[in-house]
Amino acid sequence: MFASLRTSLRLLGQQTSNCVLKSSTEQNRNLVLCARAMSSTPNTNYDFQSLKVHSPAEFVKHVEMNRPNKMNTMNPDVWREVEECFDKLADDEECRVVILSGAGKIFTAGLDLTDTSLLQIVTSDEDCSRKAFKMSKFITKFQQSFTAIEKCPKPVIAAVHSACIGGGIDMISACDIRYCTQDAWFQIKEVDVGLAADIGTLQRFPKIVGNDSLARELTYTARKFYSDEAKSIGFVSRILQDKEQMMKAALDVATCIAAKSPVAVQGSKINLIYSRDHSVSEGLDYNAKWNSAMLQSDDLMKAATAFVNKSKPVFAKL
Amino acid sequence: MFASLRTSLRLLGQQTSNCVLKSSTEQNRNLVLCARAMSSTPNTNYDFQSLKVHSPAEFVKHVEMNRPNKMNTMNPDVWREVEECFDKLADDEECRVVILSGAGKIFTAGLDLTDTSLLQIVTSDEDCSRKAFKMSKFITKFQQSFTAIEKCPKPVIAAVHSACIGGGIDMISACDIRYCTQDAWFQIKEVDVGLAADIGTLQRFPKIVGNDSLARELTYTARKFYSDEAKSIGFVSRILQDKEQMMKAALDVATCIAAKSPVAVQGSKINLIYSRDHSVSEGLDYNAKWNSAMLQSDDLMKAATAFVNKSKPVFAKL
Amino acid sequence: MFASLRTSLRLLGQQTSNCVLKSSTEQNRNLVLCARAMSSTPNTNYDFQSLKVHSPAEFVKHVEMNRPNKMNTMNPDVWREVEECFDKLADDEECRVVILSGAGKIFTAGLDLTDTSLLQIVTSDEDCSRKAFKMSKFITKFQQSFTAIEKCPKPVIAAVHSACIGGGIDMISACDIRYCTQDAWFQIKEVDVGLAADIGTLQRFPKIVGNDSLARELTYTARKFYSDEAKSIGFVSRILQDKEQMMKAALDVATCIAAKSPVAVQGSKINLIYSRDHSVSEGLDYNAKWNSAMLQSDDLMKAATAFVNKSKPVFAKL
Amino acid sequence: MFASLRTSLRLLGQQTSNCVLKSSTEQNRNLVLCARAMSSTPNTNYDFQSLKVHSPAEFVKHVEMNRPNKMNTMNPDVWREVEECFDKLADDEECRVVILSGAGKIFTAGLDLTDTSLLQIVTSDEDCSRKAFKMSKFITKFQQSFTAIEKCPKPVIAAVHSACIGGGIDMISACDIRYCTQDAWFQIKEVDVGLAADIGTLQRFPKIVGNDSLARELTYTARKFYSDEAKSIGFVSRILQDKEQMMKAALDVATCIAAKSPVAVQGSKINLIYSRDHSVSEGLDYNAKWNSAMLQSDDLMKAATAFVNKSKPVFAKL
Amino acid sequence: MFASLRTSLRLLGQQTSNCVLKSSTEQNRNLVLCARAMSSTPNTNYDFQSLKVHSPAEFVKHVEMNRPNKMNTMNPDVWREVEECFDKLADDEECRVVILSGAGKIFTAGLDLTDTSLLQIVTSDEDCSRKAFKMSKFITKFQQSFTAIEKCPKPVIAAVHSACIGGGIDMISACDIRYCTQDAWFQIKEVDVGLAADIGTLQRFPKIVGNDSLARELTYTARKFYSDEAKSIGFVSRILQDKEQMMKAALDVATCIAAKSPVAVQGSKINLIYSRDHSVSEGLDYNAKWNSAMLQSDDLMKAATAFVNKSKPVFAKL
Amino acid sequence: MFASLRTSLRLLGQQTSNCVLKSSTEQNRNLVLCARAMSSTPNTNYDFQSLKVHSPAEFVKHVEMNRPNKMNTMNPDVWREVEECFDKLADDEECRVVILSGAGKIFTAGLDLTDTSLLQIVTSDEDCSRKAFKMSKFITKFQQSFTAIEKCPKPVIAAVHSACIGGGIDMISACDIRYCTQDAWFQIKEVDVGLAADIGTLQRFPKIVGNDSLARELTYTARKFYSDEAKSIGFVSRILQDKEQMMKAALDVATCIAAKSPVAVQGSKINLIYSRDHSVSEGLDYNAKWNSAMLQSDDLMKAATAFVNKSKPVFAKL
Repeated sequence: MFASLRTSLRLLGQQTSNCVLKSSTEQNRNLVLCARAMSSTPNTNYDFQSLKVHSPAEFVKHVEMNRPNKMNTMNPDVWREVEECFDKLADDEECRVVILSGAGKIFTAGLDLTDTSLLQIVTSDEDCSRKAFKMSKFITKFQQSFTAIEKCPKPVIAAVHSACIGGGIDMISACDIRYCTQDAWFQIKEVDVGLAADIGTLQRFPKIVGNDSLARELTYTARKFYSDEAKSIGFVSRILQDKEQMMKAALDVATCIAAKSPVAVQGSKINLIYSRDHSVSEGLDYNAKWNSAMLQSDDLMKAATAFVNKSKPVFAKL
Repeated sequence: MFASLRTSLRLLGQQTSNCVLKSSTEQNRNLVLCARAMSSTPNTNYDFQSLKVHSPAEFVKHVEMNRPNKMNTMNPDVWREVEECFDKLADDEECRVVILSGAGKIFTAGLDLTDTSLLQIVTSDEDCSRKAFKMSKFITKFQQSFTAIEKCPKPVIAAVHSACIGGGIDMISACDIRYCTQDAWFQIKEVDVGLAADIGTLQRFPKIVGNDSLARELTYTARKFYSDEAKSIGFVSRILQDKEQMMKAALDVATCIAAKSPVAVQGSKINLIYSRDHSVSEGLDYNAKWNSAMLQSDDLMKAATAFVNKSKPVFAKL
Repeated sequence: MFASLRTSLRLLGQQTSNCVLKSSTEQNRNLVLCARAMSSTPNTNYDFQSLKVHSPAEFVKHVEMNRPNKMNTMNPDVWREVEECFDKLADDEECRVVILSGAGKIFTAGLDLTDTSLLQIVTSDEDCSRKAFKMSKFITKFQQSFTAIEKCPKPVIAAVHSACIGGGIDMISACDIRYCTQDAWFQIKEVDVGLAADIGTLQRFPKIVGNDSLARELTYTARKFYSDEAKSIGFVSRILQDKEQMMKAALDVATCIAAKSPVAVQGSKINLIYSRDHSVSEGLDYNAKWNSAMLQSDDLMKAATAFVNKSKPVFAKL
Repeated sequence: MFASLRTSLRLLGQQTSNCVLKSSTEQNRNLVLCARAMSSTPNTNYDFQSLKVHSPAEFVKHVEMNRPNKMNTMNPDVWREVEECFDKLADDEECRVVILSGAGKIFTAGLDLTDTSLLQIVTSDEDCSRKAFKMSKFITKFQQSFTAIEKCPKPVIAAVHSACIGGGIDMISACDIRYCTQDAWFQIKEVDVGLAADIGTLQRFPKIVGNDSLARELTYTARKFYSDEAKSIGFVSRILQDKEQMMKAALDVATCIAAKSPVAVQGSKINLIYSRDHSVSEGLDYNAKWNSAMLQSDDLMKAATAFVNKSKPVFAKL
Repeated sequence: MFASLRTSLRLLGQQTSNCVLKSSTEQNRNLVLCARAMSSTPNTNYDFQSLKVHSPAEFVKHVEMNRPNKMNTMNPDVWREVEECFDKLADDEECRVVILSGAGKIFTAGLDLTDTSLLQIVTSDEDCSRKAFKMSKFITKFQQSFTAIEKCPKPVIAAVHSACIGGGIDMISACDIRYCTQDAWFQIKEVDVGLAADIGTLQRFPKIVGNDSLARELTYTARKFYSDEAKSIGFVSRILQDKEQMMKAALDVATCIAAKSPVAVQGSKINLIYSRDHSVSEGLDYNAKWNSAMLQSDDLMKAATAFVNKSKPVFAKL
Repeated sequence: MFASLRTSLRLLGQQTSNCVLKSSTEQNRNLVLCARAMSSTPNTNYDFQSLKVHSPAEFVKHVEMNRPNKMNTMNPDVWREVEECFDKLADDEECRVVILSGAGKIFTAGLDLTDTSLLQIVTSDEDCSRKAFKMSKFITKFQQSFTAIEKCPKPVIAAVHSACIGGGIDMISACDIRYCTQDAWFQIKEVDVGLAADIGTLQRFPKIVGNDSLARELTYTARKFYSDEAKSIGFVSRILQDKEQMMKAALDVATCIAAKSPVAVQGSKINLIYSRDHSVSEGLDYNAKWNSAMLQSDDLMKAATAFVNKSKPVFAKL
């Protein structure tokens, strides 16, 4: 909402944003501006079995699902770690933005069917009501895993290559931004295994795409859909040629976001999610209350000064 | 969300879904896989004046608006029959998915203006408040007709050819999936006859398309829009060359859905609709409670076994 | 929902709508039908410093942001006038539809950074809580400005040329229909100046576009996006070659709307906005109550009679 | 909200209401004013097995649960009849207010445990998920029975003598006004038979009493509570000495209500129920839309004229 | 939530609150503590025709409905002034709490029936829909009048003597605290004049009392209820012997509140009202965001220091 | 809702409930029925610093705040332990009901003011926005502590003696049932220390009492209120002579609840809380879905059989 007269005049003649992003309609620009090498060392503060956490750039964390031999399938241990990891990232002042990707040949094949925890509940000799109580807790735990991604106030960019199946759709639907490779494909797999999705796909997927008819078709038929169809309905905002290009693009946008005021970015995420789930007037009220404290941030002055000085603002940690 | 390691490995090399659907981006594939002839005999259990109900394939019902000489216009008798028909389909264990189309030259011309029931209320000599009481009941009855389509837990595929006007938009907006022919056109006709739509268009249409600016333009101007514009905003998910091709495609997708676990498919519809009308966290809670019983279904085992055996699972009725 | 048999038959052979609008997929048609010259005299009832109000056609008002030397930036005076202006338009029976545009080189550069009212609150020597109280009032006032656009029951068509930055996005997101020129570009600028948007962008923008991934990317990165990207996500419904063409197109659609029953059009807007913020069943209930009075309008008869007579209906003022 | 100056002056000196009701603090007044004999003949339009419908006074209907040998227990037939009866009453212009009581020794003993419909579902050999689908339909049907009482826009006065157990609490919680005899006792019986109440007690009971601690204690312990405790928490608004006195008092208040404008009374009920389930600002908006038609009623003039003339207004049917 | 160990020890031995209020169960205590004479001069900043605004004590404003010859009836002028007055009080740093009473023989007789503004709409020769549009605006304006009382963040204490009829119930239901005299009586008058209440009674009254059965009886019968019944259902929290005693008690409680931190008191009111209209978890979230700024207030330190020093804290204005 | 004919007949002649509770209106009955000695050994599975957990009877847990020398004040360690304790109790199949009391002279003095964690945030040298972020997390953590009491599906009975101040009100408002001693007093202390309550009082307290006027008075004035006033507004449901009598009464009611079907009791709590926060129709829908699994419990048969056999049913663990 801010742009002074002088600012505005400049806006017309020159680049004012801190970094330059390829809009999806400008596919031939050079991407070198702020990208750094992805080959950074794993962050030793984030010690997980199924996840590897890198720090590819200042304030950027890269969470990599790291069970390539298991096709990054998900079991209760994975959920627990995902929740713990994103709870940590939420509190980590060194983190302002997160990239989420999968190691190995595919992004994720979804639930690990070799895991027997669900089966144990179903096949116990308790009555239906007691199993239902346990099942409800079991599902809720799983849901909390991906909800932790949404509750983390730092933007999360999902970078999907090859297959993203079942629980993978639930997972990336809880992310902020979705990029994928040309060869990526997606599948809302659940009906094929005899159940209705319950970890977020039915809640979040239709609210982030612009074609409800197709969203339902994909849900009821469990058919694969490919990168171009994903883009055409607004599920991903960008298709890159291959994984390398995609990770570069993801890092670009992450680095760009990391350079912004964390008060501004995290406040935006919190209010976007609140507004999705409320009426416009409720969202406005919440936003006004939120900003009544946040506009007292030093970041406004720093951003303004940096703009005038054509320097890069340095924001305090958050 | 389910996909075992072994499963996942196979996923990469072969087709895993029970049936193959043409994604909208693969327009040249052969459609013969599971389609059967559409020329089935009408179902004698569904005896209506204005509707014809066919059973073109196992577990698939085809509801055809059948007043071709009246351009499938709608009057209180039609509403009543639509509500009754979909209430029946909701309880019919032989039905797992429904196709809705129109007989004759067009899909529907909307409200039957030769019907005088509305006029009778308006021109009665009661005071405005008493007319308003009756009008409110009248509208609510009409609304219940199309809401019955939404409340029916079996997916409903609207197959639109030629004109779909006024009440037709309200009707198909309450369906799950919308296909149309190349020559189809649509018109939110209500403002042209002096009223605001009140049977669902203003509620459902903007929530299923991805271009609010256009949705409002179409509402305020009552201008026609054609199949390509309908597809570009996500109102229909697929355009077919002609009615024959469309009915074939609709039957394909219906047959595919009919082969899935009815517990899974119907649970998905119920939760999709619940989630549309609630916040994400409320939707997740409801879904967890729902699945606490539904994951105890035999269908999960049947689906898993069939997958391993490469056989087609046979699910109990529902 | 209304279309009689006879009507319907005609529908197939001839044009039935009161005016013809170019669908976005028919880009070569002639636009001369109902446009009038834009060079009308300012309406003397609307005397503002920062806005100019024209009456380019019967029942059409044109609100022009008129601080071209300040790039149509916004300050508390502008907000106050915008609110006052749209409150007036809401009550003005000569107004049935509004066009909103910007005078000078750009549509708007957003907040006027030379204005110090926000700064005064931040730099006062009160404690954080007291500043927060004042800040909250300040933001709420600003929000009311654009909410007045939404509360005005007459459709508002935003016509954007060149730059639309920061608060401009908030503003046009509160409009009904958005058109832009080929050279238009948009920027959700707020994070670049250290704050989360709080005047409506985070509330309305994601609900009117069909690509949540991109909506968030644009919010977090503050990068520019251009007319084609705006159209592809459904933010604008039409791109015109230049400002002249755009104003002509805006006037066309406005004139078309102005010829419709005001009871129908305004009722549609009120119910569309209510439905956006409520569940489908709540929206239907509200709509039924609303129409229980509105279907007793003379406009229905007038519309029907005019249709039969092929004349243009003349509706009473509202 | 209406009371003119002249009116107001009179208000102080004389009785202005159409009838005089004993406030609960004036227990010694004479009750003869408008009561008529209760021994009217059953209404032949309401032909039910389990219910008897009387017309004890003009515009007053009396619904009597009439299975005294079965202690007015409830089974699917009873639910169906209750729903059908109250749907009829909603449309019956001869009915403006309803009294609900039980024939025989007690008001109702709740669910008929000799009925096996629930058992049949539980003991079928289907899997848990399919039983759950059927159970959900079964419960919903039962819920609709009592919701029909609430949806009927005419006020319903429950008159409880002796025991009101289990489903009886659900039933009278859906009524508008509750009177009981000195010897009446109540029991939220459900936990004692191994289930959580699901027909309305958990939803409505806590919203109509003013002591949540006690409401929960009564729910968890299934202990009896008596008329005085029921009155002290606001569950009943009046205790009468015996059934005869109670029926007289119920008829008094019913006759009083029946003499009022039906537009006013029914609009009040509809808005009270809407407001219970919505925020204050939503309730106000709905009420304003509702009254925009209803204030155009002839009843306002009739009421005003009758007041000036000190006559009894005669309102048109509704 | 605050009470240190040392504090707590003291709590047991002595009075810790800044002022002493008579609990309703301690009716014999002396009320002299902080009351001042009520005979203060009218505040010249609040110049209204129908209202007189006094300043009986520091930070206490007393709004007196001042049309004693018209029995304090309400017309559009009164509404406008009430709204304007409470909007002013909301911004007036000299005001921390408000007392609302009526001059003359009664509190208020409700709507001024000699006012013809409503009649003018009803009897105009427009069609029902156009009247409905105007009626809706008319009602909304009236509603805003009393909603201004609720939106004013300073607590409002209604002090009712003698009659409080119709619109008076709507008005005091929007206040925070209600006291009345022994001889006070109340009447939800609307159905007696042929309409459903629409200015807040149906929305607020049932949410502030603990006996829904009685609330509905009072609404449908329009019968008077007296001070003791009003107290027994929780509508008023205190009955005083006569107007003088009541005004003294109101001033006592007002003076007590005025001595507290305005950040604390006003934040409490804002959050109480928000919580009434939302779920507990939504209320908690809003409260946490609110207090994230408000706990940075100097008032906490001042309150703590004053407590240790046994002095009276002096809080900055708000 | 269940009561067969035979059952019902018996109901009239004899006691049918598993245990006998003193209704508040039957104050002279003997309380010996099922109470056991309170002097049980602490449960070694619950090892906390600030809490002592006893097992006074089968399936009954007694949580005792155990910082008598600190007047059971609360600090971050206490919150953490309360949350952890109730999360454990939620999963503990040996627990079906919980009693919560305070060791030492008073129930609790509220927040521990000697704790400096809040102060550390306030006095850090970060800007207001960053402090606000931390404050928000801090408050949310505290809120989660008491919300864990509400989320625990086992009923929690608060037994309050002597003082219950500030955070104590927040705490017991999250409990199901509240008993207190004759000498108990309560204080919503927050405004006295310069802040608006934010841990649940403003959200839950007004929803569980039946006198909103008094609820607000108590909030704004921070005055003490005593056991009788607490009972008159429905905050506590029972007053006992002294702590020993109260603990006995609490144990009685707890033992009674513990003997019921845990499926029934916990389902009731979950649905009561859901219904408080939703409309009646939403609550009914949720309840139907919930019971679609829960009515398949063995507990129904066990309860029925035990009833016929006049034996005590033994329910499986949950």
